[in-house]
Amino acid sequence: MSNNIKNNQLYIGGVSAQDLAKTYQTPLYVMDEDKIRSQCQLFPKYFKSQEIQTETIYASKAFLSLAMCQLIQSEGLSLDVVSGGELYTAFHAGFPMDKVYFHGNNKSIDELKLALTYQVGTIVIDHPDEVLTLIKLIPENQKVNVMLRINPGIEAHTHEYIQTTHNDSKFGISIYDDKTMLCIKEIQQSKSLVFKGFHSHIGSQIFEEQSFIEHAQTVLKYIHNVYEKTGIIVQEMNLGGGFGAHYTDEDKPFDLRSFLPELLKNIQQTSKNLKIKAPKVLIEPGRSIVAEAGYTLYTIGGTKKTTSGKQYVFVDGSMADHMRTALYQAKYDAVIANRMNEEATSTYTVAGKACESGDIIIKNIKLPNPNINDILVVKTTGAYHYSMSSNYNRLTRPAVVLVKNGQSKLIVQRETYQDLIRNDLKLEG
Amino acid sequence: MSNNIKNNQLYIGGVSAQDLAKTYQTPLYVMDEDKIRSQCQLFPKYFKSQEIQTETIYASKAFLSLAMCQLIQSEGLSLDVVSGGELYTAFHAGFPMDKVYFHGNNKSIDELKLALTYQVGTIVIDHPDEVLTLIKLIPENQKVNVMLRINPGIEAHTHEYIQTTHNDSKFGISIYDDKTMLCIKEIQQSKSLVFKGFHSHIGSQIFEEQSFIEHAQTVLKYIHNVYEKTGIIVQEMNLGGGFGAHYTDEDKPFDLRSFLPELLKNIQQTSKNLKIKAPKVLIEPGRSIVAEAGYTLYTIGGTKKTTSGKQYVFVDGSMADHMRTALYQAKYDAVIANRMNEEATSTYTVAGKACESGDIIIKNIKLPNPNINDILVVKTTGAYHYSMSSNYNRLTRPAVVLVKNGQSKLIVQRETYQDLIRNDLKLEG
Repeated sequence: MSNNIKNNQLYIGGVSAQDLAKTYQTPLYVMDEDKIRSQCQLFPKYFKSQEIQTETIYASKAFLSLAMCQLIQSEGLSLDVVSGGELYTAFHAGFPMDKVYFHGNNKSIDELKLALTYQVGTIVIDHPDEVLTLIKLIPENQKVNVMLRINPGIEAHTHEYIQTTHNDSKFGISIYDDKTMLCIKEIQQSKSLVFKGFHSHIGSQIFEEQSFIEHAQTVLKYIHNVYEKTGIIVQEMNLGGGFGAHYTDEDKPFDLRSFLPELLKNIQQTSKNLKIKAPKVLIEPGRSIVAEAGYTLYTIGGTKKTTSGKQYVFVDGSMADHMRTALYQAKYDAVIANRMNEEATSTYTVAGKACESGDIIIKNIKLPNPNINDILVVKTTGAYHYSMSSNYNRLTRPAVVLVKNGQSKLIVQRETYQDLIRNDLKLEG
Repeated sequence: MSNNIKNNQLYIGGVSAQDLAKTYQTPLYVMDEDKIRSQCQLFPKYFKSQEIQTETIYASKAFLSLAMCQLIQSEGLSLDVVSGGELYTAFHAGFPMDKVYFHGNNKSIDELKLALTYQVGTIVIDHPDEVLTLIKLIPENQKVNVMLRINPGIEAHTHEYIQTTHNDSKFGISIYDDKTMLCIKEIQQSKSLVFKGFHSHIGSQIFEEQSFIEHAQTVLKYIHNVYEKTGIIVQEMNLGGGFGAHYTDEDKPFDLRSFLPELLKNIQQTSKNLKIKAPKVLIEPGRSIVAEAGYTLYTIGGTKKTTSGKQYVFVDGSMADHMRTALYQAKYDAVIANRMNEEATSTYTVAGKACESGDIIIKNIKLPNPNINDILVVKTTGAYHYSMSSNYNRLTRPAVVLVKNGQSKLIVQRETYQDLIRNDLKLEG
C-alpha cells in the first residue's frame, strides 16, 4: 500500500508528507508513481481478449510533462495529444511517435505540419474540411493513418446518459448526418490517408457502465451500416475515455477490472449479432490513470471564524493551482498530514490566497483542529490540476514531485518570480 | 476615437486588426494605450474635491506586466498588489514602491519580508493574527504604514446589494465583531506600525451606484464609532474597486464622471453629519481601467453546423486564454475584423480548440457569415484574461501588444513550445 499513516503522519509513496513539504516547499503537487503505474497496468491486464485486439492510450491533457511521457512509455501505453505543445513535449521526451494519436477540433496548419514532421501514428480527423487540409499537407509518398471522430448521439453524464440524434457537441460529425458517409468514402479513396476507423467520446467522469456499453453498441451498429452502404470494413473503434475517479465518497467509480472484460465481451457479442468482425478497440483513459495518484500539499497560513460562525482554513495555494472547484464546483477530500489519527470534528471552508472571493479549494470539509503551519493535503489532484494551473495573481506554479518506495524525485521545477516576467518587455525596450 | 472602421476593417488604436494578426500571429491580446490612459486620467479629474484628499490605486491583478507598471506610473496612479509575484513585477519595472499597497488574506512570511525589503508604501492587514506576525518581521527603527481590511457587511452584486451583519467573506474582519476594535487599538499602540485607516471592498462588476454610497456611509459611521469608543482618528478610507465594465449591451456601467464627484460629495456630507473630519478616500479600480481597452484577436479555423442546426465558429484560442466564459458564465461581444460593415445575420457559438466541451468563448453571438482565416475580435478582454491564462492542453499563452496612434508595440512575448518544458525534468535526469 502506497499511502499510510505512521506516528499520526501521512506518508505518500513511503515518504512523509511533512518531509516533502519541508524539502520542496508548498504548495506542492505530489504524484505516487506506484499508483500511476498500477493504473496503467490495469488496462493491459483487464482490457484484453482472445478475439479482440485492444490498445490503451493515455489522454495526456490530464497531466503531461517530460517525465510523465517517459513513465507512460515504460508502461507500454500509447499517447493521446491535443495540441502542438503536447506533441512537442512527447517528442522531446523521446516518446515513440508512432504510438501518438493527435486529436483536436481545430488543429492549426502548423500543428498538422508538426505532426507530419514527427510522423505521429494516427491523426484523428474531427471535421470533413480537415480531410482536404490534411491531404494537401502530406508530402508525396507519405501515408498517414487517420481515424474519423464521429458523434454517436450519446451524451453521458455522471450518473445518467441520454441518446439523441441531435448532439450539439463541438467535436466530430454525427452518425445521423448523411455527409459522414461521404467523408468516410473520401478518406478511403485518398492515396495519402489510411482509414483506420472511428473515434468517439461521450463524456467525462462517468459512473454509469451502461452508457459505455450503449456507446460501443451504437458505434458497432454504425460500422455495420457503413459496411452495408459502402463495403468499407472499419478496422478500429476508439471509444475515448471518461472513466470516473474517486474524489469524495459521493463518487462511485465502477470497477474497471470487471467492467473492461465485460465491455469486450459485449463488443464481441454485438459484432457477432451484427455479423461483422469485431474491430480493434482502443480506449483513452486520462483522469482514471492519474487523478487518484495526485495530492496537493499546502501549508495552512491561518484560520478565521466569521461573525456568523463560518470557519475558514487559509492555505498557501489558490484557484491558480486548483481550478476545478471554482470552474466545475468539483468536490474534494483533504486531510491534515500531521494529524492523521485525530478526529475531524469541525467543518471548514478551505480557501486560497488569491484576491478573489471565488478562490475556494473545498467548500465544506471536516478537519481535526487545523492550525497554522499544519500541512493540508488535498486528494485526487493528479488530473487537471497542474495541467490547468495559471499564474493568476502572479502566483508561481507549484513543483511536481514523484514519490515511490520512500524516495522522492522532482519532475517539474517550481516556477520562480523570474519566470513571471521572462516574456515581459519594458516600454522603452 | 481609438477604434474605427476603414474599408470594412476594424482598426484598434489606429492599427488594422488584420495587420496585427499578420504581424504578431493569433491568438493575440491587443491593448489600446489611449483607452487605458484615458481611463487612468478620468480618476484624477473626477475623483477630486477641495475638501477631501483622494488617491487612485490600480488593482494590478486585472492585468500586470512590466510595461503596464510603467504605464500606470506615468499616469501617476498608485498600485495594488496581492502577491510576491506582483510585488516583484512592480519592483523590477521600477515602480515607486512607496505608492504600492500590498493586500492578501494569507500573505506568506516570505511575501511580507519581500514587502518590507522593498519598503512598500502600505500593507493592508487582513486578519488580527497578521498584526503580530508583521510586528515580529519589521526591523528595528523601521515604520510601516498599515491599513486594516474591514468587512462592512455589505455584499454588492451586479444589480443589487445586501446589507448584513453576517458577512461570510474570506477577507477582512467584521465591523460587527468586538475584536475588530481591539485589533485597531493593537495596531495603534505598536511602535513599528503606522495605522492609516480602513480598507474594504464590496464586490466586482457592480452597476448599482447606491451600493457604493451605502458602503462609504457604513465605513464612515464605523470611523465615527471607533473615534467615540477609542479616541482614534481614522485618517484614510480605502473603498476598494468593483466598478463595472461594459462587456455586452446588457451591461450598464454607471458613468464614473458623474458618480465619483457624487460619491465625494456624499462622503463630505455624511462626515459633516457625523461630526468627523472627512478621511482621505482611496479607490482601487482594476477592471474599469483595462477591461474595455483589451481585445483578443483569433483566427477562425473553421465553422460547423450540427445535425440539429447549431452553428459553431472555431477559433485558434481557447478557455486557456479566455477563462471567464467557462468560469463565470461571462458574456462577451465580438466582431469579425474584416467584415465590419456586413450585417450579422446568423447566430453562432464561438468555441476554442481545447479538448473539452466546456471550451466556449461566446455562447451566442450574431456574426456576418464567418469564414476560415477571418479574424474574430472579442471585445472587453483587457482584464482577467492574460492574468488568468494557463497552458491547459499545453497551449502557449498569447502575446500582448500595445497599440497607439497607428503604432504597435509588443509588451509580452508569445510563449514558445520551449517555454512549456523549461521546468520539466526527465526521469533519468
